[in-house]
Amino acid sequence: MSAEVEEMLKRFQNVKNVVGILVVDNDGIVIKSTLDNQTAVHYAGIMRTLTEKARQVILDLDATNEFTSMRMRTSYFEIILMPQDNYIIVVIQNPCD
Amino acid sequence: MSAEVEEMLKRFQNVKNVVGILVVDNDGIVIKSTLDNQTAVHYAGIMRTLTEKARQVILDLDATNEFTSMRMRTSYFEIILMPQDNYIIVVIQNPCD
Repeated sequence: MSAEVEEMLKRFQNVKNVVGILVVDNDGIVIKSTLDNQTAVHYAGIMRTLTEKARQVILDLDATNEFTSMRMRTSYFEIILMPQDNYIIVVIQNPCD
Repeated sequence: MSAEVEEMLKRFQNVKNVVGILVVDNDGIVIKSTLDNQTAVHYAGIMRTLTEKARQVILDLDATNEFTSMRMRTSYFEIILMPQDNYIIVVIQNPCD
């Protein structure tokens, strides 16, 4: 993982509402996480599947287009997905004020 | 569809960056659209599938939680999904400045 990404993760960790960060490779394996191990593994597989679905959906709409990021709101928290070439960055945060 | 939603759709149509609006029922049928018919039908099925996937993913993480909305960025445009009880509102917009 590049120094640039390490730096970005540090910045996210200092954001007030962020409650967890996860980096997952394209096989759904946890590379880095601030979550407990069981939660991280649970999230990793699910977020990898969702990223693949989003990529596929965007390609289905236009084969020259590319999925670049997603912000998903739920009743309890927000999930931000940022797919890179070889891994996916997942940020879990409380809703912004 | 309630008057409240009709009003919301009107507001979206007047937003500078919005290029298309679609309302899809839970079977993937187009209820309302500003897109041409073929594009609307194509988006409807895909957006319904993606919404179902997002709902399922959030329930898999926590059965008491609920998916409420999604903003997806792509190389060309953004897609906003807002699931309601009986239909899904889809807004397609150019990236904000």
